[in-house]
Amino acid sequence: VKSIPQKGISLKTYSFAKSKKNLTEVLTDKNLASLGDAYINFAYSLALSNRCGEPVGTKMKGSVLAEALRKAGLRKHLPSRMDQHSLADAAEALLVYAWLNKSITLVETVEELSAKENAVDNLCELLTKVARKVKFFS
Amino acid sequence: VKSIPQKGISLKTYSFAKSKKNLTEVLTDKNLASLGDAYINFAYSLALSNRCGEPVGTKMKGSVLAEALRKAGLRKHLPSRMDQHSLADAAEALLVYAWLNKSITLVETVEELSAKENAVDNLCELLTKVARKVKFFS
Repeated sequence: VKSIPQKGISLKTYSFAKSKKNLTEVLTDKNLASLGDAYINFAYSLALSNRCGEPVGTKMKGSVLAEALRKAGLRKHLPSRMDQHSLADAAEALLVYAWLNKSITLVETVEELSAKENAVDNLCELLTKVARKVKFFS
Repeated sequence: VKSIPQKGISLKTYSFAKSKKNLTEVLTDKNLASLGDAYINFAYSLALSNRCGEPVGTKMKGSVLAEALRKAGLRKHLPSRMDQHSLADAAEALLVYAWLNKSITLVETVEELSAKENAVDNLCELLTKVARKVKFFS
């Protein structure tokens, strides 16, 4: 199946999206984390809106992101001595990397974030799934 | 052309998305504005990332949103005596309403926001386009 380029859009939707070498390189990229913050806040807002039946804007707490990253077993890909803020950044970087590289869609992200009551559990499953699916250059 | 339902997704992607009666009802909806804030911050972050060639997270300033709304001639659909914050909210509500109701895609939003140097001009064109395209229930 050939992709059909849409009006004004190259096959790679976002020209700044670059492939990384490995998980550690993704998880420690502060630029990705910065964009990832906007991504996860939007996705989590949609998940919460679905749950409430009304549009709502919210932010994903850093403590939730950090806990989910640990629970998903991804801590080992990071240097020792990282504070909670850096662990949260790592989770945000991975999520938006996966989205930019089309390993996951926004709709799938929102579905995972709305799956159960517990936000940490949802995010942990999402991170686990995404860590398995993301591609690196070889 | 029939829509093909994707895995786990109803034809209407987000169940909380409701049709409104008219522009005023959209522009004054504070719940939509709350979600719209997350939407526009993500879209604007992508636009800026495209421009910088690196991922970056940012926020769209309230003053830019308010000025663009006025410039797009949408002020007249709002009650008199509204502060800048409420005008910014109105712009955010309209943008996410258009996206939720599939009058515009995220990619199109990002393209409009990256079109020219001036953020107000880009946003003004986007709001003008979107205000023409959005649908209401009759």
